[in-house]
Amino acid sequence: MEYGVAPLERLVEQLETLPGIGHKSAQRLAFYLLRQPEEKADKFVDAIREAREKIHECSVCCNLTDRELCPVCNAPARDPSVICVVEDPRDVAAFERTREYAGLYHVLHGTISPMDGIGPEQIRIRELLVRLTDERVREVIMATNPTVEGEATAMYIARLLQPFPLKVTRLAYGIPVGGDLEYADEVTLRRSLEGRNEL
Amino acid sequence: MEYGVAPLERLVEQLETLPGIGHKSAQRLAFYLLRQPEEKADKFVDAIREAREKIHECSVCCNLTDRELCPVCNAPARDPSVICVVEDPRDVAAFERTREYAGLYHVLHGTISPMDGIGPEQIRIRELLVRLTDERVREVIMATNPTVEGEATAMYIARLLQPFPLKVTRLAYGIPVGGDLEYADEVTLRRSLEGRNEL
Repeated sequence: MEYGVAPLERLVEQLETLPGIGHKSAQRLAFYLLRQPEEKADKFVDAIREAREKIHECSVCCNLTDRELCPVCNAPARDPSVICVVEDPRDVAAFERTREYAGLYHVLHGTISPMDGIGPEQIRIRELLVRLTDERVREVIMATNPTVEGEATAMYIARLLQPFPLKVTRLAYGIPVGGDLEYADEVTLRRSLEGRNEL
Repeated sequence: MEYGVAPLERLVEQLETLPGIGHKSAQRLAFYLLRQPEEKADKFVDAIREAREKIHECSVCCNLTDRELCPVCNAPARDPSVICVVEDPRDVAAFERTREYAGLYHVLHGTISPMDGIGPEQIRIRELLVRLTDERVREVIMATNPTVEGEATAMYIARLLQPFPLKVTRLAYGIPVGGDLEYADEVTLRRSLEGRNEL
């Protein structure tokens, strides 16, 4: 009952459920949305509705798309012999920004996390296995996050893939480019030593 | 064309227009909104629509409300002899949190700001003058922000009110409670000296 205006309280409440939005920010956003001209507010709401209606998972790689196939799976120039397995669609965008990777992706939409009740069936592992019947696939790069869950998921999938005649690789660990050694944690430093290359 | 998925790009674009939301946050919010169950997403969108449809300005004090009168103007216990003039509905909420003020409010919805093309006609000054025909009003407290625009607006309104038989006051300036003198700016310190009280 901060403002005593029920629709306003409900709007603030809804905005507060957004990740990274606290009470003060939610209030600011609510007043901003109320102040906008009709056309602008409609555009905003329509963008949410349209995105939710049209966007679904790519029938091959499970990345988000509004077509049958996502732009990567649909591009004839991509190399079908490599599949990079990531947790999240944002990771695909991150790899695409490198302009380095020409293979395909597979988006798991999460990691195995028994603590949160997420088992292997809740993420897109089955869909990955189906793709491996395509004999053009030669390598699967496990590109899950270097977190406990990401590692465990990478290990789990790597074991599952043992029967397949393909290479399973993992992203290199090491010091981040532009980072400061002083602030690197010991595990990262140890990994960067272990993985050292000749110059 | 970051994701190559037009409805997603449009959603991120719309979220980016929100105050305090940068590109990364907008992406995070977009994926969050896409991940939500139907019911939750509907609730979110409905809260925006409902708030925009039902909320308008109180016919007396211009605060936001979904009724004819806002909760303050509608409360019989409030003292009609004092009107506290603020810039924004959030300022009303801030004063209400003090549980100290029993008078009424008037919300200007902005300040006079010639740089932004906002003149006295663009804010609710006319509505304030109309209220002063009520002879119960004895005092108008100028509670605009202690900024250049807030000060100028307070001075402008104070001059306008000179013909009326009432007291026009301004909030006290001084050091914020719990603040550190070391970090107080000189103007604030000077004001807190000028306004010093006997103990």
